[in-house]
Amino acid sequence: MKTIVVRNIKRTDAELVKRLGALGVATVHEAYGRYGLMKPYLRPVWQGGEAAGTAVTVLAHPGDNWMIHVAVEQCQPGDVLVVGCSADNTDGMFGDLLATSLMARGVRGLVIDAGVRDAKSLREMGFPVWSKAISAKGTVKSTLGAVNVPVVCGGVNVEPGDVVIADEDGVVVIPKADAAEVVAKGEKRLADEAGKREKLAAGILGLDMYNMREPLKKAGLVYVDELPED
Amino acid sequence: MKTIVVRNIKRTDAELVKRLGALGVATVHEAYGRYGLMKPYLRPVWQGGEAAGTAVTVLAHPGDNWMIHVAVEQCQPGDVLVVGCSADNTDGMFGDLLATSLMARGVRGLVIDAGVRDAKSLREMGFPVWSKAISAKGTVKSTLGAVNVPVVCGGVNVEPGDVVIADEDGVVVIPKADAAEVVAKGEKRLADEAGKREKLAAGILGLDMYNMREPLKKAGLVYVDELPED
Amino acid sequence: MKTIVVRNIKRTDAELVKRLGALGVATVHEAYGRYGLMKPYLRPVWQGGEAAGTAVTVLAHPGDNWMIHVAVEQCQPGDVLVVGCSADNTDGMFGDLLATSLMARGVRGLVIDAGVRDAKSLREMGFPVWSKAISAKGTVKSTLGAVNVPVVCGGVNVEPGDVVIADEDGVVVIPKADAAEVVAKGEKRLADEAGKREKLAAGILGLDMYNMREPLKKAGLVYVDELPED
Amino acid sequence: MKTIVVRNIKRTDAELVKRLGALGVATVHEAYGRYGLMKPYLRPVWQGGEAAGTAVTVLAHPGDNWMIHVAVEQCQPGDVLVVGCSADNTDGMFGDLLATSLMARGVRGLVIDAGVRDAKSLREMGFPVWSKAISAKGTVKSTLGAVNVPVVCGGVNVEPGDVVIADEDGVVVIPKADAAEVVAKGEKRLADEAGKREKLAAGILGLDMYNMREPLKKAGLVYVDELPED
Amino acid sequence: MKTIVVRNIKRTDAELVKRLGALGVATVHEAYGRYGLMKPYLRPVWQGGEAAGTAVTVLAHPGDNWMIHVAVEQCQPGDVLVVGCSADNTDGMFGDLLATSLMARGVRGLVIDAGVRDAKSLREMGFPVWSKAISAKGTVKSTLGAVNVPVVCGGVNVEPGDVVIADEDGVVVIPKADAAEVVAKGEKRLADEAGKREKLAAGILGLDMYNMREPLKKAGLVYVDELPED
Amino acid sequence: MKTIVVRNIKRTDAELVKRLGALGVATVHEAYGRYGLMKPYLRPVWQGGEAAGTAVTVLAHPGDNWMIHVAVEQCQPGDVLVVGCSADNTDGMFGDLLATSLMARGVRGLVIDAGVRDAKSLREMGFPVWSKAISAKGTVKSTLGAVNVPVVCGGVNVEPGDVVIADEDGVVVIPKADAAEVVAKGEKRLADEAGKREKLAAGILGLDMYNMREPLKKAGLVYVDELPED
Repeated sequence: MKTIVVRNIKRTDAELVKRLGALGVATVHEAYGRYGLMKPYLRPVWQGGEAAGTAVTVLAHPGDNWMIHVAVEQCQPGDVLVVGCSADNTDGMFGDLLATSLMARGVRGLVIDAGVRDAKSLREMGFPVWSKAISAKGTVKSTLGAVNVPVVCGGVNVEPGDVVIADEDGVVVIPKADAAEVVAKGEKRLADEAGKREKLAAGILGLDMYNMREPLKKAGLVYVDELPED
Repeated sequence: MKTIVVRNIKRTDAELVKRLGALGVATVHEAYGRYGLMKPYLRPVWQGGEAAGTAVTVLAHPGDNWMIHVAVEQCQPGDVLVVGCSADNTDGMFGDLLATSLMARGVRGLVIDAGVRDAKSLREMGFPVWSKAISAKGTVKSTLGAVNVPVVCGGVNVEPGDVVIADEDGVVVIPKADAAEVVAKGEKRLADEAGKREKLAAGILGLDMYNMREPLKKAGLVYVDELPED
Repeated sequence: MKTIVVRNIKRTDAELVKRLGALGVATVHEAYGRYGLMKPYLRPVWQGGEAAGTAVTVLAHPGDNWMIHVAVEQCQPGDVLVVGCSADNTDGMFGDLLATSLMARGVRGLVIDAGVRDAKSLREMGFPVWSKAISAKGTVKSTLGAVNVPVVCGGVNVEPGDVVIADEDGVVVIPKADAAEVVAKGEKRLADEAGKREKLAAGILGLDMYNMREPLKKAGLVYVDELPED
Repeated sequence: MKTIVVRNIKRTDAELVKRLGALGVATVHEAYGRYGLMKPYLRPVWQGGEAAGTAVTVLAHPGDNWMIHVAVEQCQPGDVLVVGCSADNTDGMFGDLLATSLMARGVRGLVIDAGVRDAKSLREMGFPVWSKAISAKGTVKSTLGAVNVPVVCGGVNVEPGDVVIADEDGVVVIPKADAAEVVAKGEKRLADEAGKREKLAAGILGLDMYNMREPLKKAGLVYVDELPED
Repeated sequence: MKTIVVRNIKRTDAELVKRLGALGVATVHEAYGRYGLMKPYLRPVWQGGEAAGTAVTVLAHPGDNWMIHVAVEQCQPGDVLVVGCSADNTDGMFGDLLATSLMARGVRGLVIDAGVRDAKSLREMGFPVWSKAISAKGTVKSTLGAVNVPVVCGGVNVEPGDVVIADEDGVVVIPKADAAEVVAKGEKRLADEAGKREKLAAGILGLDMYNMREPLKKAGLVYVDELPED
Repeated sequence: MKTIVVRNIKRTDAELVKRLGALGVATVHEAYGRYGLMKPYLRPVWQGGEAAGTAVTVLAHPGDNWMIHVAVEQCQPGDVLVVGCSADNTDGMFGDLLATSLMARGVRGLVIDAGVRDAKSLREMGFPVWSKAISAKGTVKSTLGAVNVPVVCGGVNVEPGDVVIADEDGVVVIPKADAAEVVAKGEKRLADEAGKREKLAAGILGLDMYNMREPLKKAGLVYVDELPED
């Protein structure tokens, strides 16, 4: 492991990020073949927050937020800060002072595989955060990590500049190289869904709309009137 | 395991369901002798939702929501859909399209031993859901399960047609055969509680109201003025 | 283990409690050298609740709330009830009737290493509770424990009369003997933070404000333009 | 919930139990369509234990082993005792004295959705146990449950007399009515596997032996020489 | 929190420690009224290890084993080292070099609310350890804690000099002041158990031996021949 | 996500792999700056197994082991198979038939972020496996993933051809490019440790051997004779 800060990263095109953000996590994740979703233990600190941006990444040791301070300087408007740790941790490695700094730089949110504190302030400031825990447990600043190297966060490998989309359904990461394709597939999905919702609301069954009856029968599903006696 | 769909189930009487719903989960659970409560990891997806209905049950494999689509057709107004899985799972097996379908059929809510997605839409639609997780992770439709067979959900065995009551305190299941008795006991409890609340608010101690002083003394409780030195 | 109730406990001075409450959990915890914080699985039952008070302690067996009833009588205005259990437990050992009693006595909140029920009522009553779970699972009243003896709750040893501060960031406990010193340190921290927040909002980097550049360099942090090829 | 003890239960035929035991958990579970497996948190207390028998069931409250004492009398040679609890629990509800009693009655093992104690003695006595935890935490005898009613254990509903097979891979339950069919399917599976093992050991690929190449290609799997550049 | 090392601690009498060790964890825990048991997530690193000694305590920050090095010097023959952390942690804070040091000083074992490494060496050296995890994750030496102050470990408050008994059933802590009484009660329990074991092995039922039939009947237990129809 | 199989991967030099294996997980992990360690929930299925090899990687959906069958063909002598999943899962995705295939190809072990079955056979065959769970739960073969693409396993990103070292202390991954440097540093550490062990066994304190007394004093550690009164 090299304890480095990488200054120049290639960010995904802002227009693609915006369109992925408009699609939302569930649609983007489906459009990407159901990969790239962080584990569901990463939850929004406050309800209603949403974020779409390009990843600036931090690799930290648990209970040590020194590298987050270092990372702030590398952030640009439109970024999302992504923090991975070298071991499981729930300490509050991030609070309202760091959030103030990130907001001043136009950062759109934080995804952290650890805890955060000042939950109430974060909500009042409107800075969206996805974390593993809320904990007042403070941290030291004693061990180096790295900034803008690939990091694993919530079970997903994130490269600097990748797209990060986060909402109430979780956090999904799309590699730069795949962003355009996922936008296209996702927008098509969304368009299809609108029509489906109307039909379903009108009482048309998914069984019929998706033509499932035949494959279900072929797979062996049997309809009976009563539960058979043992 | 038979991969079947049972069409005709015997639902608990709607009037009993309504009265159990009015009692709420905590009272119903006490009235049933403190059994029938699903494990507390099943939490409401949005605060304030409540549901009382008759169970239509789904047995599914994790990450596969094919049988939920099948189950929609078996639902009637007043039902609550209950989904059990053959292994632990947090995938988002249910989202707003399925919720649209269920609402169109008059279903009162969903209890699922897995994850759901489209959390924000579910809240906006007002469709109450109790789940193990929120996760955008989508699912396949490839393996059969069963509909309206007994399923274990949240650690409780649910028979089709049983009463399901769910609120912020959790989810409780009352077998058809016991519903009338539980209504009677629960309504009596509730009547008793109102008076108690007033007394307690007036400062009367539970110790006196419940006549606990004597049994506590008999059990060996001792009052001392100071913590004894070691 | 002696099954006793200690009547006279030495409570921390009310003025100190008030000032610690004004500081909030995160600041108090830092000021105490990052000790005394309960584990982050203890979460507020409803958002926005805050409590600061002196501990009345209960040692209970899981699933048995007899001793909580006993403890009510020992509570005074300004207390916070702290309940530890002899084994892990999520049962709903506390509900709205006990909350009514505690409010009638001027108690400021409950911290319980177990579950609670009547979550909706607790929110509506405005009685703040920090618990491990929400569960309708009721309890028995059959085994003695103790009141106002030292108890471990959320991984922290709490002595009767200690200060308990709880908010959205968690629960912190300060021993009586350390309260004055923690107030002093905490108030100094808070004063320092206000100025920092302004600077950070204006775009000044923490790297500069905290003079981190030199120690980072000395520790070996290297800035590079591009991620080195493997 | 009725607090009853059911004396007469219909046990699965002993010959079928024996043959299911010879197949082992993994094969039986597959032969039953991948249903009926208890959750993997249930682990053998000592390595190498195996059990196959007919279920005598206990429904208990956590931390209370009164009903296990009651159940002993209902056990016959060839039974496996299955204990479910009304809430999550790790207390040591079973130890070497109860094991002595069960061995005296010819019981083949214990499956308990809670903790056990005297782990060393259980191993030395050779009494096989599958539990959720090992814990010295003792229990009370104060609340009634039931014996030989259906109970949920490890996420599976167990009816009295059902077949319980347990080994290092876990615990599987087969309903009486399905035992004969599962024996037949399982024995066929096992016969098929022996041949497969030889072929695989000789280096024949599963890809070829199971004819997977065509369906993989059809599903869209592509072989490339190098990982494509992003 | 004071960052201190306390040199002189009052150790429990060695003879009492020895007799408590001979009783084993389960008996000692019962004799102490079912209190004092650490949570069951603390497990022996290798099977068969047992330890009984007087506590030397360490309060550490997670991922930092500096204070364990400090504590070694305070250990005497017959001690057990007990390490609590200020937050949850699974890092390997202890390995074979520290074990070599402790063995050189006659220490009987380690109980640590975190991880350990060199599991194989610890087994080969015969140094018994109870820990929360096995993990190679190393630690830093950068933050002070304390030695021989009260610490919470596995949910139990441990005072320096208290008795620590550990075996396959877990870890129990008996305060100095209670050791003599617990020895007396425990030895009486053990004597009683021997006779019971013989009777149970001979087929006498616990129901009769413990005279449970009458209280069960009074509590409302009913024997029926068949499970009642719903 | 592309559903591809990459045929040609660049494996780390076999001599380096061998020397890293000789160092063991704890030393390698330290030599790599305390990064690269998989989470401690990955445990050896049987005690005493060790493996050192080059990674062949599999990206699978939970409950679906189709891609493991595909991966077997890509394995060479000296490889370790590493399986990551797109969501949390404990199903038994690997058993003795697949192990037979891998052994026939000279594969040294399996690391899988899911469950395995046939635990007893795996131990008897001597095929070392590190997994998240043991579970008989079988799997389907219905959804494509990928082989020899980067995968996250146990929280670590693994590139095909990276070094995987696994023993009782866990699993550590060293990127190809860093292997030589880690070997050098690790062998130096090991040489240093031998001398230290002798000194510690002779009773020399780590405090003196590591010259900690001065830095501890400077950091503020105070030795006192008695615990100060509160």
